[in-house]
Parts: sequence; structure tokens; C-alpha cells
Amino acid sequence: MSLLVTGSIGLDTVETPAGRREQIIGGSAVYFAYAASFFTPVRLVGVVGEDCPKSLFTIFEGRDVDTSGLEIRKGSKTFRWHGSYVADLNSAVTVEVDLNVLAERAPKIPENFLDSKYVFLANTHPVLQQQMLGHLKSPKLIVADTMNLWIQTERPELIKLLPKIHGLVLNDGEARLLTEEKNLVAAARQVRKMGPKFVVIKKGEHGSLLSTDRGEFVLPAFPTDNVVDPTGAGDSFAGGMMGYLSTQGTFSAATIKRALAFGTVVASFTIADFSLDGLRAATRDAIDDRWHEFKNSMSF
Amino acid sequence: MSLLVTGSIGLDTVETPAGRREQIIGGSAVYFAYAASFFTPVRLVGVVGEDCPKSLFTIFEGRDVDTSGLEIRKGSKTFRWHGSYVADLNSAVTVEVDLNVLAERAPKIPENFLDSKYVFLANTHPVLQQQMLGHLKSPKLIVADTMNLWIQTERPELIKLLPKIHGLVLNDGEARLLTEEKNLVAAARQVRKMGPKFVVIKKGEHGSLLSTDRGEFVLPAFPTDNVVDPTGAGDSFAGGMMGYLSTQGTFSAATIKRALAFGTVVASFTIADFSLDGLRAATRDAIDDRWHEFKNSMSF
Repeated sequence: MSLLVTGSIGLDTVETPAGRREQIIGGSAVYFAYAASFFTPVRLVGVVGEDCPKSLFTIFEGRDVDTSGLEIRKGSKTFRWHGSYVADLNSAVTVEVDLNVLAERAPKIPENFLDSKYVFLANTHPVLQQQMLGHLKSPKLIVADTMNLWIQTERPELIKLLPKIHGLVLNDGEARLLTEEKNLVAAARQVRKMGPKFVVIKKGEHGSLLSTDRGEFVLPAFPTDNVVDPTGAGDSFAGGMMGYLSTQGTFSAATIKRALAFGTVVASFTIADFSLDGLRAATRDAIDDRWHEFKNSMSF
Repeated sequence: MSLLVTGSIGLDTVETPAGRREQIIGGSAVYFAYAASFFTPVRLVGVVGEDCPKSLFTIFEGRDVDTSGLEIRKGSKTFRWHGSYVADLNSAVTVEVDLNVLAERAPKIPENFLDSKYVFLANTHPVLQQQMLGHLKSPKLIVADTMNLWIQTERPELIKLLPKIHGLVLNDGEARLLTEEKNLVAAARQVRKMGPKFVVIKKGEHGSLLSTDRGEFVLPAFPTDNVVDPTGAGDSFAGGMMGYLSTQGTFSAATIKRALAFGTVVASFTIADFSLDGLRAATRDAIDDRWHEFKNSMSF
């Protein structure tokens, strides 16, 4: 079943203890789409400026990603982010950010994408997220991401979005900010009261927490000493999770747990190299093997 | 099989978001012994001053804890610790600490304890830990804890201890301090090169990491929104882990994994109330029930 994703596409400059890379391909929708495409066909909606390098348009070659929703806007510039993980691999310090085309109007969802059943609204302004949703005909599963910026500056709009989605994915700091609850289990339950049927809190190297009406489930990150670049880990996690969910047709707590484990494993490929290189080195077989290894290591 | 523990016994003043308690029973060996006694008979070695309240001597009533190694030293004062978790439930701020009797000579291990097969050296000076070990006849499994203070001030003695023990339990900050490795998987492997066959890194609300020659295993904490007082969580974790191991007679990676899960569950009882009240409300049946619940929630 086709999975629609809309979110940022951009050029990253990244510094980590393993090195520095300039103007490499990044953005939440890019990591998400690549990760999800191991599981299901993906429809990508996003916008870049006319300065965007050609390499961005070849990144999905050989992948089942429909890029016809990718707009190249004349007279606009591509989103750029410069982040550093040198001090702490678990959280980026933003050195510089140029929203550029992301600060303009949202990209248009192509007509033939409007019947998408599975939808991921990667992190963007909650008004744009609601507008996107309004165009879709009959979505079956809608999951959104958000960030501290919108929680702080656009809380009323974010609160309006929450009852319209089935799942919310956010990180631990964002969950605490949104609910003013320090305890993450309490925070996740609080978010569920605001609308979503399930909430996934991403805790970086500490894994993730799922909260549903069937209770809480905590999953550690896949243990690794090979962390080259954490950029895109959260988006790849969401991509692996939604990619798997899109193939299942049911969203029971048990199914979402398995999906979380797929997200965890896919993210472990992402962080092993810069930009998309970690994901490009993965295959569906390698993902399945690591998933089974992870599953076995979790049983005692 | 009898399990010997030696470590601190003291009076704590604790402040948490749930309230403040003064001069309540605490100490690493007390939490450990109570937790381990759900699984196996425990032999406690420790020392208090003559000012110690009678309530400390009744705390183990009805438990299979042999307190004949508990010395009440004339002219000495009991160890006291005052800590606050008000700002962060995951890490205590020490407001005041009076080592008192802990700064004097170590307590004597009773003659009839010297044949103990299972030994836990709770956190204390690494020279004392080595002296304790030297008295034992034929220990089968020796596990030690340590802390940042000794890593910083007594590194050479700690390095001498490590090849003499089978397992080391320490928290994430201590593992990073000992190895200068930020990545915890790498840090745990580094510690294993210093001697212990297995290393357990405690990550507070984020669970624990086990490293053995069979690889790494990560377990989240038992998810709960009811954290009243985290004091003793790490010692109870070690107590549950060692208590279970003492009943097994084998220390395979699979056995240690199950032991880690018991430690996790026992710690979840500890943090639900002040001092030993959380553990006192537990039963072996309740521990087993929660262990199975945890095991099931971890399977996907």
C-alpha cells in the first residue's frame, strides 16, 4: 500500500567526531522515504530551490520512491542545515539553519497521491500539516512528527492537529515540553489524551517508548559502537516503522511493537555512515537479519 | 547457595519531588541484601556506629538475611548521606555526606562466612574490596560495584581489583570516566579488557547494558510513571541480579540476561516508595509476575 510522506528536503553540513561533510543530501522526508522504501512504495512530497544539486534527484534511483511530488521552485533556495554532534553524539547543536524555500508556501500534493492510505507528516509547521491532511481523500493511518519550535511557538495549532492524527512521533525533550511531565511514561499518556491513539517517544541512543491504550512498551536502541553520524536516525526510524505498518493493514499494539523494532534496526544502518550512505549500504535482507538478531537478543 | 554482600549501611536524608524523609535506613549493602533475599539466603557484612537506631536491626526481620556480620562499633558514628532528586529524578545531588565509620577500618568477615561462593562487593574503597576478597576461601562468582570517587582518586587500586573479579557493575557516567569512551558499548568492551568477564552498565531510567564475550545486550527499565525515590535502585538491581545468579550455578550470557531482568524488576519495586518501603511491599510472587510481564512486553 502506498505511503505518502511530506517533509523537509535539504542540504546538510554535519560535524561529528568521525569527520565533517559539507552540503550533503538530508532532510526529514529524504531519510524517511529511503528508509520506508525497503518495505513499501513511497510517495514523496517536498520542495527544493533551483540551486538544488542534481545528486538529489538521483538518490532514489533504483528505489520504489515516486518523486513526482518533488517541486523545484524557481527563484527559491533549498533548505540548508548545519549541525554539530562533536560535543554529544546524542543531540545536535544547530550551528546555522536557512529555512529558505521551507519558509514559503507548502508544496502541492499531486492529484494521483490524494488516495494515499498511509501518511507521514514529517516535522513542519502544524498549519501546513493540517492543510496537507485536508487534501487527502481517505487516509487510513496518519502519523506526524513535530519539534520543540512548534511546541513553543505554535502550540494552539499543534493542539488542533493532534485529534486529527492516529499517531505522534516525537523525541523525549519535545514530549516533556509539550506536556510539562518529566516522566516519559506519564508524558506519553498525557499526549494520548490530546488525541493520538498511540505515541512514540524517541530517546536517541536510549531507544524508544510506545504508549497505547494497551500500555507502554520500551525498546532500546540497537547496541552499536559504530556511530558515525546520527543525522536522520529519527526520520529513518519513523520510515522503517511506517514502512512496515503500511504492509500490515492492522495497527494493534503488537503490530506497532514489531514496527518499532523495524524502525530501530533501520536507524542503526543510518547512523553507521554520513548522509544516506548507511542506508544505501543496507538491503531488505540485511534489515530482516538484524531485526531477527535484535528480536532474539531481546528475549530472555 | 549463600550470597555474601559487603558495603555501606547508613542513614539517608532524601528529597524527591514526592517529599522529604530524614534519617531513613539506607546504604548499598542494605538495599542489596533486602533485594537479594527474595531469591537466596544473604550474608551481610557491614559496620555502623553506636548511634545507629534500633530500627536498622529489625529491618531484616522475617527475611533470610544473616546479620551476624553487622558490627556496631563503639565510639564511632554511622554513615550518613543527604541527597536530593528534586531537580532530576535520574541523578542525585549529594547535599551532604558524613562517611563516619566508613572512613575507618573495614568490618571483619565472620569465620562462617568465609566459604561464601557468591560475593558482591558493593561500592567502597578498592583497597578494602581487595582485602575482603583476600579472606574468602573459594568464591565462585565475584561481582563488584564502584563509583566516580574511586575512579578519580584510586585508579591504580581499582585497576588492580578488576582482574580479580568476574563482573563489574557501574553506571554510565562511571563507565565513561573509567574508559574515556563516550559510546557505552565501546566503554563496556574496554572495561572487559581490564579484567571482568562481564560488565553491566546501569543507565537509570534508561535501563542497563550487559557486555560479555557473546556480545552486548540492552534492557530498558521497567516502564513506570510511579517514581517516588530512586535511592537504592542500582543496589536493588544488583541484589536482584546476584540473588538470581546465586540460584543458577551457571553464568552463561543467557543466564546473566535473565538475571538482569530480575534486577530490573526488583529495582522497579524499590523506586515506588521511600527507603526500603517499596521492597517491603514486594513478594517473590509479585516479582515473578512482573518479571513475566516484562519478558512478554519485551517480545515482539
